[in-house]
Amino acid sequence: MSNEKTFNVAVVGATGAVGEQIIRLLDERNFPIKELKFLSSPRSAGTKIRFKDRDITVEAATPDSFKGVDIALFSAGGDVSKELAPIAAAGGTICIDNTNAFRMDPQTPLVVPEVNIEEVHKHKGIIANPNCSTIQMVAALKPLYDRFGISKIIVSTYQAVSGAGSKAIDEMLRQSREALAGNPVNPDILPVGSLPVKHQIAFNAIPQIDKFLDNGFTNEEMKMINETKKIMNDESLEVTATCVRIPVVYGHSESVYVELKEDFELEEVRSLLADAPGIVLVDNPQEQQYPLATEATGKLETFVGRVRRDLHNKRALNLWIVSDNLLKGAAWNAVQIAEYFAQNK
Amino acid sequence: MSNEKTFNVAVVGATGAVGEQIIRLLDERNFPIKELKFLSSPRSAGTKIRFKDRDITVEAATPDSFKGVDIALFSAGGDVSKELAPIAAAGGTICIDNTNAFRMDPQTPLVVPEVNIEEVHKHKGIIANPNCSTIQMVAALKPLYDRFGISKIIVSTYQAVSGAGSKAIDEMLRQSREALAGNPVNPDILPVGSLPVKHQIAFNAIPQIDKFLDNGFTNEEMKMINETKKIMNDESLEVTATCVRIPVVYGHSESVYVELKEDFELEEVRSLLADAPGIVLVDNPQEQQYPLATEATGKLETFVGRVRRDLHNKRALNLWIVSDNLLKGAAWNAVQIAEYFAQNK
Repeated sequence: MSNEKTFNVAVVGATGAVGEQIIRLLDERNFPIKELKFLSSPRSAGTKIRFKDRDITVEAATPDSFKGVDIALFSAGGDVSKELAPIAAAGGTICIDNTNAFRMDPQTPLVVPEVNIEEVHKHKGIIANPNCSTIQMVAALKPLYDRFGISKIIVSTYQAVSGAGSKAIDEMLRQSREALAGNPVNPDILPVGSLPVKHQIAFNAIPQIDKFLDNGFTNEEMKMINETKKIMNDESLEVTATCVRIPVVYGHSESVYVELKEDFELEEVRSLLADAPGIVLVDNPQEQQYPLATEATGKLETFVGRVRRDLHNKRALNLWIVSDNLLKGAAWNAVQIAEYFAQNK
Repeated sequence: MSNEKTFNVAVVGATGAVGEQIIRLLDERNFPIKELKFLSSPRSAGTKIRFKDRDITVEAATPDSFKGVDIALFSAGGDVSKELAPIAAAGGTICIDNTNAFRMDPQTPLVVPEVNIEEVHKHKGIIANPNCSTIQMVAALKPLYDRFGISKIIVSTYQAVSGAGSKAIDEMLRQSREALAGNPVNPDILPVGSLPVKHQIAFNAIPQIDKFLDNGFTNEEMKMINETKKIMNDESLEVTATCVRIPVVYGHSESVYVELKEDFELEEVRSLLADAPGIVLVDNPQEQQYPLATEATGKLETFVGRVRRDLHNKRALNLWIVSDNLLKGAAWNAVQIAEYFAQNK
């Protein structure tokens, strides 16, 4: 970034899996920082985190932490955001919130920069980062939405355990070792840490991410449905989601069926995707090239492949969309928004 | 089974993953056997396999192997079936073929007993067993098809490595150990043994099962599409499939969106599924109960859950369907057909 201005930045949830990636991205991309503050729960306060040539001591986040802070990136859980982001925002801090706390609040823009960056200008101090599984899907579908319109999306996800936090990664790896050794597998966290029933994730597929609602869908599925409509600013868009956790560490994959509003040529779809910002088309079936979670790990882009015309509905097509859920799905999307502010302030 | 008659039975491919399960089922279910013959490639001939209180030596399968055989169960690959099943059938043997060789042959019934057992009477010596991913889906959808009609199915699969044979299981477990030890992972077989490009399956999701066709779908996906139409005897049925291999040992899971031809009550759908032969409804979201691959392993039934009304199309619903791909998806479906013959001969 080339920018004369510098900013006071705070990372809330600095010791978490997403916070760690946010800090790495601020460093690697040379974000124009004047002062940098790492905040966390009182439990993690005192930890030192390296940033460029210095160690920064993590402080417990309090309502007073945000004085003089220009931009705060929140990823410490919905409760922390609900408590502290409004206070920070009232004091003039731009809060980029990676939790579910404000996503569906009509006052809060829900932003994927490739899709609706202009929404940030409507902010009242808080901008919400969408759910990981939503971000990569809308980023990939946006060029098709703009060119043809979209009437219907049916998505089934293949989601990595890192989406449930670093303890879920540890659990999946531990269970894998137990199963490979022929020992009993002891589920402890997944599918949902706060719910009583636990299921094995190693060598399994769990069709539950987050809690169930009365309509039979999970919160995660409803996030994909509602957030997609909000980000695309289209209440008429029909979205159906089935969200499934699989034994992958990083990288969510999505099988997506899309009905467009107009006829299309497959070659135009491919070239729209290939030219879209933040999208990499990996689609050469004859060479067995398609997006893979292991290959998307650590990358900032969203990868799209298996692009094919539906055999029955001439306005429908099928896609396979993969991205690193901690990066484009969380930290990178938040840092992208922060960079936009820095460049346009 | 209570039956006075006994039969001369041959298992072709007796040393393979599916053959092993066929033999176990013939034993456990006390199939009315007069003489039992285990056949294989010349390479595996000479192996001894225990059956009840005796060891049976595996013989190399030749055109002469089928003299006097009443029922032969083939699972030794498409080439073996293509060569030997027509010869056996011409000699009066009922051939139940678990390979892809005759599935789409108009002369050959393609049978899932819960769906279309009456088709077996049209046989000309060969009855085909459908593809594993198709069987569990049509078994679960049949009661809904009969009651409401079905216009459209969109399925995304989560398929176990055992579907690619026991070497693929070994590879997935070996890669898992390599990755857990922090060592490089060396893909050797998957996604398709006979193709040049290999991908890591451990901690990954590979959106390729079998070879690609020019329309961008894989053979596996086209099997689901074409076999479903043939088994349901409905060319107007619209099926779209995305088939994905995931690091699970046994048990295919499927996320299925279905459009019915009539309005429905969700409670009737649930009771139709609960009462359907071969189907177990596991659907209690509030208790976090839904089908899981690890729990379906070793079971003969097809498990259905996550039954929920679509939020947009009042005639659509979503399901999660799981079954042991080596049992209902292969060996058990074949033995069910053999039992029907034994009971109706």
